[in-house]
Amino acid sequence: MTGDYEVQFQPAGRKCRAKAGMTIRDVAMEGGIGFLLPGITSPCGGRGLCGRCRVRVVEGIAGPVTEAERKALSPGQISDGWRLACMARVKGNLEVEVPPESLEGKQSLQVEGLEVEIVLEPPIHRYRVKVPSASLEDPLSDGQRVARAMGGYQVSVTGDLEALRRLPGDLRNGKWEGEVSVRGGEMIGFWPGTETPRCLGLAVDLGTTKVAGYLVDLGTGDLLASAGLMNPQIPYGEDVMSRLTYALEGREKAARIHRAAVDAIGQLGRDLSAQVGLEPGNIEETVVVGNPAMHHLFLDLPVRQMALSPYVPAASEAIDVKSRELGLPSAPGSYVHVLPVVAGFVGGDHVAMVLAPRIHQRQGVILGFDIGTNTEIVLSRDGRMTSNSCASGPAFEGAHILHGTRALSGAIDSVKVDANGVCTYTTIEGAPAMGICGSGILDAVAQLYAAGVLDWKGTMVRDHPLVTVTGSGAEYVLVPEDQTAGGRPIVVTQKDVREIQLAKSAIASGMKALLEAEGVGYSDIDEIIIAGAFGTHIAVDSAVAIGMFPDIPRERFRQVGNAAGTGARMCLASLSERETAREIARSIRYMELMAFPGFNDMFVNELGFPVS
Amino acid sequence: MTGDYEVQFQPAGRKCRAKAGMTIRDVAMEGGIGFLLPGITSPCGGRGLCGRCRVRVVEGIAGPVTEAERKALSPGQISDGWRLACMARVKGNLEVEVPPESLEGKQSLQVEGLEVEIVLEPPIHRYRVKVPSASLEDPLSDGQRVARAMGGYQVSVTGDLEALRRLPGDLRNGKWEGEVSVRGGEMIGFWPGTETPRCLGLAVDLGTTKVAGYLVDLGTGDLLASAGLMNPQIPYGEDVMSRLTYALEGREKAARIHRAAVDAIGQLGRDLSAQVGLEPGNIEETVVVGNPAMHHLFLDLPVRQMALSPYVPAASEAIDVKSRELGLPSAPGSYVHVLPVVAGFVGGDHVAMVLAPRIHQRQGVILGFDIGTNTEIVLSRDGRMTSNSCASGPAFEGAHILHGTRALSGAIDSVKVDANGVCTYTTIEGAPAMGICGSGILDAVAQLYAAGVLDWKGTMVRDHPLVTVTGSGAEYVLVPEDQTAGGRPIVVTQKDVREIQLAKSAIASGMKALLEAEGVGYSDIDEIIIAGAFGTHIAVDSAVAIGMFPDIPRERFRQVGNAAGTGARMCLASLSERETAREIARSIRYMELMAFPGFNDMFVNELGFPVS
Repeated sequence: MTGDYEVQFQPAGRKCRAKAGMTIRDVAMEGGIGFLLPGITSPCGGRGLCGRCRVRVVEGIAGPVTEAERKALSPGQISDGWRLACMARVKGNLEVEVPPESLEGKQSLQVEGLEVEIVLEPPIHRYRVKVPSASLEDPLSDGQRVARAMGGYQVSVTGDLEALRRLPGDLRNGKWEGEVSVRGGEMIGFWPGTETPRCLGLAVDLGTTKVAGYLVDLGTGDLLASAGLMNPQIPYGEDVMSRLTYALEGREKAARIHRAAVDAIGQLGRDLSAQVGLEPGNIEETVVVGNPAMHHLFLDLPVRQMALSPYVPAASEAIDVKSRELGLPSAPGSYVHVLPVVAGFVGGDHVAMVLAPRIHQRQGVILGFDIGTNTEIVLSRDGRMTSNSCASGPAFEGAHILHGTRALSGAIDSVKVDANGVCTYTTIEGAPAMGICGSGILDAVAQLYAAGVLDWKGTMVRDHPLVTVTGSGAEYVLVPEDQTAGGRPIVVTQKDVREIQLAKSAIASGMKALLEAEGVGYSDIDEIIIAGAFGTHIAVDSAVAIGMFPDIPRERFRQVGNAAGTGARMCLASLSERETAREIARSIRYMELMAFPGFNDMFVNELGFPVS
Repeated sequence: MTGDYEVQFQPAGRKCRAKAGMTIRDVAMEGGIGFLLPGITSPCGGRGLCGRCRVRVVEGIAGPVTEAERKALSPGQISDGWRLACMARVKGNLEVEVPPESLEGKQSLQVEGLEVEIVLEPPIHRYRVKVPSASLEDPLSDGQRVARAMGGYQVSVTGDLEALRRLPGDLRNGKWEGEVSVRGGEMIGFWPGTETPRCLGLAVDLGTTKVAGYLVDLGTGDLLASAGLMNPQIPYGEDVMSRLTYALEGREKAARIHRAAVDAIGQLGRDLSAQVGLEPGNIEETVVVGNPAMHHLFLDLPVRQMALSPYVPAASEAIDVKSRELGLPSAPGSYVHVLPVVAGFVGGDHVAMVLAPRIHQRQGVILGFDIGTNTEIVLSRDGRMTSNSCASGPAFEGAHILHGTRALSGAIDSVKVDANGVCTYTTIEGAPAMGICGSGILDAVAQLYAAGVLDWKGTMVRDHPLVTVTGSGAEYVLVPEDQTAGGRPIVVTQKDVREIQLAKSAIASGMKALLEAEGVGYSDIDEIIIAGAFGTHIAVDSAVAIGMFPDIPRERFRQVGNAAGTGARMCLASLSERETAREIARSIRYMELMAFPGFNDMFVNELGFPVS
């Protein structure tokens, strides 16, 4: 225990001082590795249990190989110099190679324009155990045997009755060997045998219209697969309020619309795990984000108080609930973590959308929009955040637009109208035009205004050569009948324009209320972050042209894709991110637009288009 | 904030020094009250929330009445000098009266010969809240409003989804007032309005034959009602092993026998709460003790590993599980706490039976017996305990005895045979004899041996005038046909005697194994505690006469009634007692009789009767 040695860590090249008897992990920690440089991972807290802190001694000799290392490493690995950093002790100078998989995971999540670093800190850890079989002389219960095999790591083997029910059979099927899944000190599962499947997690953005799922390997943080499907609640109502109204029509309907949300997530779990050749029973943790209505319907919480003024949620805190309590197909003891909500119309999806681009940490004035049937807007000044929600309606999702459609193959997604009023357009996948999706209709309105087909009040100029007046009003033919998939012309009607005006005015006046309350002018805005599928695909110029967004330099706009989904993935892979999400939800001040003085005037003022 | 005063607490008469500004509670605590004398209760930790620390200022004047006190006390009470000890502050000398209900509860549980003091420390606390109603200006979620109304007391309102689901409706039904039930920081229920029902707890001794239930007011610790019923699993097997075998015959049978246990406890909950005019939905905590087989069948844990050598439980730790997960009718968010087990044949009932008479704390050599189909025996030397379990069979419950019966009205419960072999007897409730129960058959065998009808090997003396020999063997007529309820004679057969010999030998040899292992002789035994319904009703002399118990001075025997049930009640009313039960379960060394050298010889040696 005397002597003063040096341990060099590769590939970083950092040299640390060491005393004889210290573990390699201690040397790294005392030498500042883990603070200045990524640290050596140790999910089991340095108890030799998880086998994750493998390092290779390439120069010098460490202390004797321990029992824990013989369990975690093969004889071949040991003779190649592999050791566990938490077990191998210094007895002279060493050079140690730390492979990437033994570093504390910094995980890069990249989704359409958004790149964010997180520390992998999953809610579930797996511990490999080898349990001596029971005998008359050693008749401990199965649970005690497993707890004993985990050594100093405190685990409640009786925390989950369902996991416990499977333990005796699985222990024996696995010949007294396997992996224990632990969540917050609770044994939530046991995977028998020497070959165990990877630990899956599912992140879900439960949108009013679309449900997006991401399957993640919780051991590595890797995204394994992703998929989306239409929210099967749509038949019960297009927007949030009509779904709440449906749920209020009786217990049976409430149960049905709840079931639909659970089924959608179950379906995603099945589809995604099948993509990697596994069962949904391998999903050991699910994270769900959604607006408050989706949140409540998914959890089958009462919605009456949220559908009526003053529109309060039953609960706003983050909720952890057993998957099986909701009837979700996943691992027997697994949990669903549902992100906190902010207020009756600002939900966990908004929290996730703030979390993912780190709006809460940023200096300056940042505006964030998540445009949907409800559009949530956050205004952050040096991290001090206020949010509101405005009823922008489903026009941007193609609803209430005569030839509107969702963003499917053949949907018109961009439009140009030249000075003569002649239209060119693109469609998704270049297929024959079958309708207009959100970005297309936004373009169309902006371009028709620029071309003088619409006046600043949004009224179609009836004597414009390209405007037709039918029994039901004025319309503009975007695509003649011979160019469409359906053999009928695709038109933009006066009513369509009015829908877009209502939608953009809702968004613009919601933004103005925030700016006004904070005394912030357009020129003060450092960045506008636009999240969501629609927001990512729009032409910012068009949105500015119709007055939805302020006319500030274009480089201050950032379209970040499904930030809510990214936030959900972050919270799936990292407990710290969950904590941050909680703090965000707590710290966001909610602005109730219905209580904002002069909001109705603002809304009316924003209905027209900007006059330059 | 200057000055040094004196506060005198009545009726104890103790004077404590006080500084201005201290609360009365602080004065009491700093003055050693609560250590030397029973302290002032403070379930909410002195936050003015629970209103339980009421004291009356009879001399002097305390600081101004706080908001919390106006909530907890009526104007009349306040003008009578009533205050909350945690809120009222010293500003001069005081004399304070502490009523009994404001003292930390010492609870006396008395059940047939066993009196035990516990500190009332229930798992559930109720907190009265008055919540400001939601408005557009104050749109916090219902959960947040309740949490806020509880002040500094940290409670997770989202811990139980089912309780949360009921909150919005109940909050409004109760006009924003009611009581929150909290268990370990989790909101498990909300009781709306100003008049709320008391908080019920149910303690259950789930015996192989009989299920005993005790309904307790968790606010006061009072026993409100008790009842027993036959275990409805009996049709699936009389003893533990045959029930396990039944459960092993397939998933459906396992589910059925599990259901039977749950139903029995549900039935007790319904019956007992009806006795006090309430619904089982008012039961907010249930504690269950039982042998390992009852434990596993109740929880639907796998039993294969317990039915086959080496007979290990799936789990031995205490288990907390939501009642609704088992389908038990009780309060929506309520839990069942199941006591830990020691080994495959030594269960939570044994732990409770050690706990209740405080065997673990006693000095000297204590033997404890819980006689049943399996008899568990503990030997404690200054609190160091070893236990085993012996298969004594159901003879003492009247089974396998020709005219055996359970202890019902008309059962012969004591027998005397005079020197001439002439029999006198008593029956339960003095009803006409209809059979012999356990204590009766034990007496009968002892008395027949004393009268020379049986020899020391237990063989009936065939030429004895009172012994009849029939086709099926020798028998002794205890009650002639004209004196019985059924009009047929009640007899003791040779086979009956053999059953009793097998049973008593199992018990005696189990005891001897413990004594031998510990090197303890009969004369070293300081006390023999006999628990259980049968054990409480037997004549100790008879048990000694046939060699079931050692012949030591009779004052060293103590018959303590249903100690397992008492232990269950203690664990229901006190979290510390649960912790003690855990320690007892951990510390008891289990002796596996099948692995004990020479046990079979011991058993054979004990079959005969003592020759004096």
